[in-house]
Amino acid sequence: MRIVVLAGGIGGARFLRGLKRAVPDADITVIGNTGDDIHLFGLKVCPDLDTVMYTLGGGINEEQGWGRADETFHLKEELGAYGVGPEWFGLGDRDFATHIVRTQMIGAGFPLSAVTEALCDRWQPGVRLIPMTDDRVETHVAVELDGERKAIHFQEYWVRLRASVPAQAVVPVGADQAKPAPGVLEAIAEADVILFPPSNPVVSIGTILAVPGIREAIADAGVPVIGLSPIVGDAPVRGMADKVLAAVGVESTATAVAEHYGSGLLDGWLVDTVDAKAVEQVEAAGIRCRAVPLMMTDADATARMAREALALAEEVRGA
Amino acid sequence: MRIVVLAGGIGGARFLRGLKRAVPDADITVIGNTGDDIHLFGLKVCPDLDTVMYTLGGGINEEQGWGRADETFHLKEELGAYGVGPEWFGLGDRDFATHIVRTQMIGAGFPLSAVTEALCDRWQPGVRLIPMTDDRVETHVAVELDGERKAIHFQEYWVRLRASVPAQAVVPVGADQAKPAPGVLEAIAEADVILFPPSNPVVSIGTILAVPGIREAIADAGVPVIGLSPIVGDAPVRGMADKVLAAVGVESTATAVAEHYGSGLLDGWLVDTVDAKAVEQVEAAGIRCRAVPLMMTDADATARMAREALALAEEVRGA
Repeated sequence: MRIVVLAGGIGGARFLRGLKRAVPDADITVIGNTGDDIHLFGLKVCPDLDTVMYTLGGGINEEQGWGRADETFHLKEELGAYGVGPEWFGLGDRDFATHIVRTQMIGAGFPLSAVTEALCDRWQPGVRLIPMTDDRVETHVAVELDGERKAIHFQEYWVRLRASVPAQAVVPVGADQAKPAPGVLEAIAEADVILFPPSNPVVSIGTILAVPGIREAIADAGVPVIGLSPIVGDAPVRGMADKVLAAVGVESTATAVAEHYGSGLLDGWLVDTVDAKAVEQVEAAGIRCRAVPLMMTDADATARMAREALALAEEVRGA
Repeated sequence: MRIVVLAGGIGGARFLRGLKRAVPDADITVIGNTGDDIHLFGLKVCPDLDTVMYTLGGGINEEQGWGRADETFHLKEELGAYGVGPEWFGLGDRDFATHIVRTQMIGAGFPLSAVTEALCDRWQPGVRLIPMTDDRVETHVAVELDGERKAIHFQEYWVRLRASVPAQAVVPVGADQAKPAPGVLEAIAEADVILFPPSNPVVSIGTILAVPGIREAIADAGVPVIGLSPIVGDAPVRGMADKVLAAVGVESTATAVAEHYGSGLLDGWLVDTVDAKAVEQVEAAGIRCRAVPLMMTDADATARMAREALALAEEVRGA
């Protein structure tokens, strides 16, 4: 079975771990969000790609969900002593190595997709991880700060401000000019099923879908496209998805997110059992819907979610 | 009193600490060797400049003589896990921060001299540290390896091979095209005394003197130029200076090194008490010479050496 998964960071990575456990023999291609990439200290940092790679490769800081296990922060401490920031972005000593290798390879002329493949040679994530694009896309968030409207990098909004001010708009700068990375459209065309994990619908999956050609390829693939709601009981399971949903005029409900993707894209949608009432509404929007436990409390629970998604795909296929 | 000191790494840095203790109110300008600079992992590393800066700024690993105190090596360990080397060059997590800041500033267009000044803003070494040049100079060593003659980077010869094969030639590549960094010639012209610490006469002080204009400025300064022998009892006090002295046809003796600098450059020379016999020979070469203890066993002993050098300078001046 060939599965394509669109993934952001922590939520996507944890779901993928469950998916691998549910179907160990499946051929899984992950299309990773790169809109949250950021240049820091002259290095190219790809937080979402790395979270997927570290999580599936066994190098993740489990409690935190991002960054490396057994991490130290001496380099960052020293940068601070030199007065060089930002201090709000937590790059650890081990993590730095990934960004140094990536930056060197990019400087040597390799596209991000080739670099990601090389990094994965070490981590052996057990999936094929492809960035959505080799071109530069940078998600900016329009906010009002000190009475002034300005566009800031997504990481500054998310990590520094912790989404404490309303997002007025979310713009994946450069997405309209970006091309899908080599392998992205091919993987979608050859997929048996396409999954949207409970990742952020705006800044993770939304950004991937903003790369011209990807949304169309998914809609035209002719295979079940199944999503899992990142909203449970009208609140994001983790993160601050509600803040950026508001910016695109979408309510923080499982139903609203399904409608935001739309029946032109989505064939099936899983909501949590606490949102069982949403099933009828989602189905009224032309999307097959089931209510199942959606809390990724451990690998087993997550594997069950993945199985439910694949079961719903079979149901869609048989319909 | 304005003192100019030509310095390599560990020997120069330790001597400078003694000099500061001997004459706390002196205005000291250090002209640092950059021939051992190396690009690693896309970063510009300046081992000699950093050794001086860390030693005088209180950040040095005292036992080792180079690198940072309380250091960890997680980043390097991870680079190794990615298969990215060289593994023979010991860059620690704290040390990396210096190279990242330097590389960013150079990328932003600042010359190395301005970058060094900025880094010293943090370390407050209590001296003015200027690289010998803002231009790229890279010391290469010609060796025979596996039956083949090749030129390798000085660091590869020194750190990886530990000078285990004979150096057939030592070439400061680029030195002939280099210009002294801003402030170098001015400091020499305004100096009251110029000191050559017990640094490597070939790859440290020799490289500085290879930058066109510096040797001439020192010879023409009209002030005492005093050196301290890095050779005690026919062997280098530390390091492997004998290996590179052989490459330039100079014996590993206190006398031969003084003659190598020559009376056209050097006015006074300190040898260790065990080399008292050298005094007569050196003076016969037209260089005033004294035998004093030259082991930098601690800061007091080093301060005494510095005082002896300044006393010899006064003697030269009064002659």
